[in-house]
Amino acid sequence: MTKGDLVDQTAIDRIHQSFAAQSMMATLGARMVDVASGTVRIESPILPGARQQQGFGHAGLTFSIGDSAAGYAALTSLPLDMEVVTAEIKINLLAPARGQKLVAIGTVVKPGKRLCIVTAEVFAIDDGQRKLIAILQGTMVPVPA
Amino acid sequence: MTKGDLVDQTAIDRIHQSFAAQSMMATLGARMVDVASGTVRIESPILPGARQQQGFGHAGLTFSIGDSAAGYAALTSLPLDMEVVTAEIKINLLAPARGQKLVAIGTVVKPGKRLCIVTAEVFAIDDGQRKLIAILQGTMVPVPA
Amino acid sequence: MTKGDLVDQTAIDRIHQSFAAQSMMATLGARMVDVASGTVRIESPILPGARQQQGFGHAGLTFSIGDSAAGYAALTSLPLDMEVVTAEIKINLLAPARGQKLVAIGTVVKPGKRLCIVTAEVFAIDDGQRKLIAILQGTMVPVPA
Amino acid sequence: MTKGDLVDQTAIDRIHQSFAAQSMMATLGARMVDVASGTVRIESPILPGARQQQGFGHAGLTFSIGDSAAGYAALTSLPLDMEVVTAEIKINLLAPARGQKLVAIGTVVKPGKRLCIVTAEVFAIDDGQRKLIAILQGTMVPVPA
Repeated sequence: MTKGDLVDQTAIDRIHQSFAAQSMMATLGARMVDVASGTVRIESPILPGARQQQGFGHAGLTFSIGDSAAGYAALTSLPLDMEVVTAEIKINLLAPARGQKLVAIGTVVKPGKRLCIVTAEVFAIDDGQRKLIAILQGTMVPVPA
Repeated sequence: MTKGDLVDQTAIDRIHQSFAAQSMMATLGARMVDVASGTVRIESPILPGARQQQGFGHAGLTFSIGDSAAGYAALTSLPLDMEVVTAEIKINLLAPARGQKLVAIGTVVKPGKRLCIVTAEVFAIDDGQRKLIAILQGTMVPVPA
Repeated sequence: MTKGDLVDQTAIDRIHQSFAAQSMMATLGARMVDVASGTVRIESPILPGARQQQGFGHAGLTFSIGDSAAGYAALTSLPLDMEVVTAEIKINLLAPARGQKLVAIGTVVKPGKRLCIVTAEVFAIDDGQRKLIAILQGTMVPVPA
Repeated sequence: MTKGDLVDQTAIDRIHQSFAAQSMMATLGARMVDVASGTVRIESPILPGARQQQGFGHAGLTFSIGDSAAGYAALTSLPLDMEVVTAEIKINLLAPARGQKLVAIGTVVKPGKRLCIVTAEVFAIDDGQRKLIAILQGTMVPVPA
């Protein structure tokens, strides 16, 4: 794990604990592989049980890891006793989720105690080629943990 | 299953086959319980493996069934040899996904051969009480099956 | 003006004063023609100075009155000493803004002191025919007036 | 005007002609100050007639120039005989439109003959300080000119 400029191990541990408590992430095989100040990276395989009707990754998979990456990016900007919930988020799907793995990178655009504006990009890795397949833009709301 | 004004059993069967091919829906325990012209209803339990960090249904679950309900609603307006893919969709989450079951109702706002505009509502059923927990608004794109 | 179930004239007056203070609405020729609990209607001509390159109403016109209708709908659900600002809103444009007049109807989906979820529909009136040309879905944030 | 890597003066002229035909831009005082391959910059004052109720720039102003910047960015990626219309776009407003001038920068994320995915950022310039006040994410649809 890269720590970037988020030096506080307590904060990193807190975020990993929250992620581990999201059973949906385990169901999808997703892992949080990078946590830094204002940005988080989540990776997942495209499991046989996460496909749409044409055999590509389901939009719900792409959304789930994009949303989580954006949410945990927001959490890196908040005090230790807070959680975030998604108020709203929009996804534009650019290409099918084709390949072996998806990578979601969430980024804080504007932190805030009341609203935190975030974006995420999701890439598909297919035979070593990385392709942007989705972009997300949304609002996270801090709530007491 | 209620057929509404979609009388063509071939069309209904085609939509059920497409839904059955979405392994993500089986993973989430989702079922398509109603198909009518311009509207589709999908229900799912809130499985232990589909939770967020506070124990409620994950936003990815709510999104997945809302998106699928909207997409299949679009498909009811198209010829039999077409499928749809989500171009973009936005979700506003109004309340936690708390309870025993989620119900997503997708609706076609404007059909079209090039773009189909859709909305969806997602409700949580908690001890028999139905509560609106999310609204979605998006664009489906018809593609050859 | 129809009052619907919002019987408090003070509240109605407050909303009209706020609307009158939006110089953008005057520039667009927009008028607030209906205020009721949880819903507001705004109408505007398609002025010569509010067109896009093909001569139809500009997306910015459709957005402006849709956003304002949604925002003032939110304001009907709040105490007299509050204003609202748009946190985010998404518009799907269904058809060109063609005709003599636009009508925007904003509706509160979920009121709240922290976030208020709203939708709006915008119709074009062309030779007496009413056509849905846009739908909006967004979040208003109450702030002290 | 900076030309970036868009060397074809005919294409630049075509885009300026389309912009000049948008009377809404003239009403708002907006100018297209930069056209390059995949990106367009539009600037506008915050005119007295484009304010919201607190005296800041109206969300409709911010949206209008953001949407136009995104749309013309899309147009730089298309053949000369095409126009674009906005299918859908979402705006997150991060801060009030306070200051002397707004600057919108539109960018193509994924070009396409059927759908073109775009983003835009809008900045307020206040006493020489530049502040990000809005981000947009949307879909443009190419249509015959």
